[in-house]
Amino acid sequence: DPNLKVFSLNSNPDLAKQIAEHIGIHLGECLVSSFSDGEIQISIEESIRGSEVYVIQSTSDPVNQHLMELLIMIDALKRASAKTINVVIPYYGYARQDRKARSREPITAKLVANLLETAGASRILTMDLHAPQIQGFFDIPVDQLLSVPILSEYFMSKKLEDIVIVSPDHGGVTRARKMADRLKAPIAIIDKRRPRPNVSEVMNIIGDIQGKTAIIIDDIIDTAGTITLAANALVERGAKKVYACCTHPVLSGPAIDRIQASAISELVVTNTIPLPEQKNIDKIVQLSVAPLVGEAIIRIHEKLSVSRLFN
Amino acid sequence: DPNLKVFSLNSNPDLAKQIAEHIGIHLGECLVSSFSDGEIQISIEESIRGSEVYVIQSTSDPVNQHLMELLIMIDALKRASAKTINVVIPYYGYARQDRKARSREPITAKLVANLLETAGASRILTMDLHAPQIQGFFDIPVDQLLSVPILSEYFMSKKLEDIVIVSPDHGGVTRARKMADRLKAPIAIIDKRRPRPNVSEVMNIIGDIQGKTAIIIDDIIDTAGTITLAANALVERGAKKVYACCTHPVLSGPAIDRIQASAISELVVTNTIPLPEQKNIDKIVQLSVAPLVGEAIIRIHEKLSVSRLFN
Ligand SMILES: Nc1ncnc2c1ncn2[C@@H]1O[C@H](COP(=O)(O)O)[C@@H](O)[C@H]1O
Ligand SMILES: Nc1ncnc2c1ncn2[C@@H]1O[C@H](COP(=O)(O)O)[C@@H](O)[C@H]1O
Repeated sequence: DPNLKVFSLNSNPDLAKQIAEHIGIHLGECLVSSFSDGEIQISIEESIRGSEVYVIQSTSDPVNQHLMELLIMIDALKRASAKTINVVIPYYGYARQDRKARSREPITAKLVANLLETAGASRILTMDLHAPQIQGFFDIPVDQLLSVPILSEYFMSKKLEDIVIVSPDHGGVTRARKMADRLKAPIAIIDKRRPRPNVSEVMNIIGDIQGKTAIIIDDIIDTAGTITLAANALVERGAKKVYACCTHPVLSGPAIDRIQASAISELVVTNTIPLPEQKNIDKIVQLSVAPLVGEAIIRIHEKLSVSRLFN
Repeated sequence: DPNLKVFSLNSNPDLAKQIAEHIGIHLGECLVSSFSDGEIQISIEESIRGSEVYVIQSTSDPVNQHLMELLIMIDALKRASAKTINVVIPYYGYARQDRKARSREPITAKLVANLLETAGASRILTMDLHAPQIQGFFDIPVDQLLSVPILSEYFMSKKLEDIVIVSPDHGGVTRARKMADRLKAPIAIIDKRRPRPNVSEVMNIIGDIQGKTAIIIDDIIDTAGTITLAANALVERGAKKVYACCTHPVLSGPAIDRIQASAISELVVTNTIPLPEQKNIDKIVQLSVAPLVGEAIIRIHEKLSVSRLFN
């Protein structure tokens, strides 16, 4: 369909290329660069009048740069008479600022939703939001894809025996449960507790992990503090082997060094965020979400249900 | 008045401090930092419920970072029940993207206006907008301060003789005219022309500059290409000495080296943007806009006319 156009910005050009390949089209031509003073310059190099446009951009580090690229691109598409502007945000940055944890804090995840709508987005397609409530921050349609099927399939293909799926906190139990159902495995939960103020946290484990192969699942791994402590605790309490997996490999600061030094034998992530180059990441396996996102774009464009992709 | 609060973000803390001193209050307490993955973290450390809040932030390089700091701060102030959120943007970044120069370009200056309103700004106070039309991009009140009085006073104090005020292009004639009126001097205009395509521009000069002291005035000096070529052309055509001045010293890329190597004997700028440290900037004189901005804040807070500041 010549009315379907897919554009990539600068956060994740490889993923965008794979998505376009899956759909069977070329990426749209556009120039996204910077002026000498750092201001973003965008120009769309082909007509998109009347088109249904999909823009692919994760708001990963550098998050403010990537977000502004996206907002400016939406503005340019709107002024160039796109019929619809479908914003594909595989990794939605600022998602952890989704509530006022203390007085006088912003709710940046909601601000970002408002900014995207103000710029002119017609629809959002994203993956594994840190909190499902973020869908409600928008007044436009939001489709959320889940990586659990992709991650589960990978572990299924390894034919591991006697596994247990571990949620690193109580907030992640639903996700762990989904994976456990697919792998027909039990779950366990890491129950972090601080016995007294200023005493370091204790990693209590709820569920049977003795002699088992544990797979920890989370949505985001950022500095990798939680997940590496959890892995070490699992091994100490008798787990035979520990895998970890997540959708969004933010991996900032000491993350990679911590993972390499931890009890985790393999970390499985997706490519919603590209992995850092120039680093020793031999424990990390990256799976592509391009077929899933590409399929979702096709289904949205053909006005079919996207939830079918999870079955 | 305890209901008047002034907060600084990270673009220009020195200017903010001077403004608070001029008003005679302390800057409000707030924490503006970054998480490990680069996401901005803001928390306001004192109650602002019911206050009239002024936030000082130039959207200078790194422009996307500074703009997001501002938007997130506005969001936090709004949720903390500020009575009004008065946004002081001494340098309004993205102002040069104020129209579609070519097809399928964004109008980022308008996008930024929409983003500020969406975040919750009640009013804008800015200086020397690149185009006065940008005021019309907002649906909230915008006050624009001009640096011409400050720059003119500086040159007046030098007691220069036989001067001519030079506009570096036709768009800047109104500004040059304002300065010329204050200094009781004639004006001249640099009339850049490209005789044929792919032939370099000719710097034609309209007006009498022979044997005179020229003062070139512009709003922004970015890479300093235009202004240094203009200065050299003025000297070639017989100007005795060349000064240059502007409101906003963007000074990106080769700017400083070009200025130091040019025929400009002194460049006078304001502190809407801090000057780069660690560089040889001995030709540059920086004047403070803090008294002007401070006075404007007092007048706005007391509901008096701000245009009185220009007389
Ligand atoms: N980019 C970030 N990096 C680290 N912590 C964050 C970030 N954004 C928000 N937070 C904090 O993480 C907490 C929310 O995480 P969670 O409890 O897992 O939903 C909040 O208390 C935030 O202060
Ligand atoms: N940050 C920037 N740096 C250099 N040029 C820019 C910048 N932003 C916009 N422009 C260009 O400058 C022109 C507008 O400048 P002007 O004609 O002086 O109003 C437009 O053609 C823009 O493409």
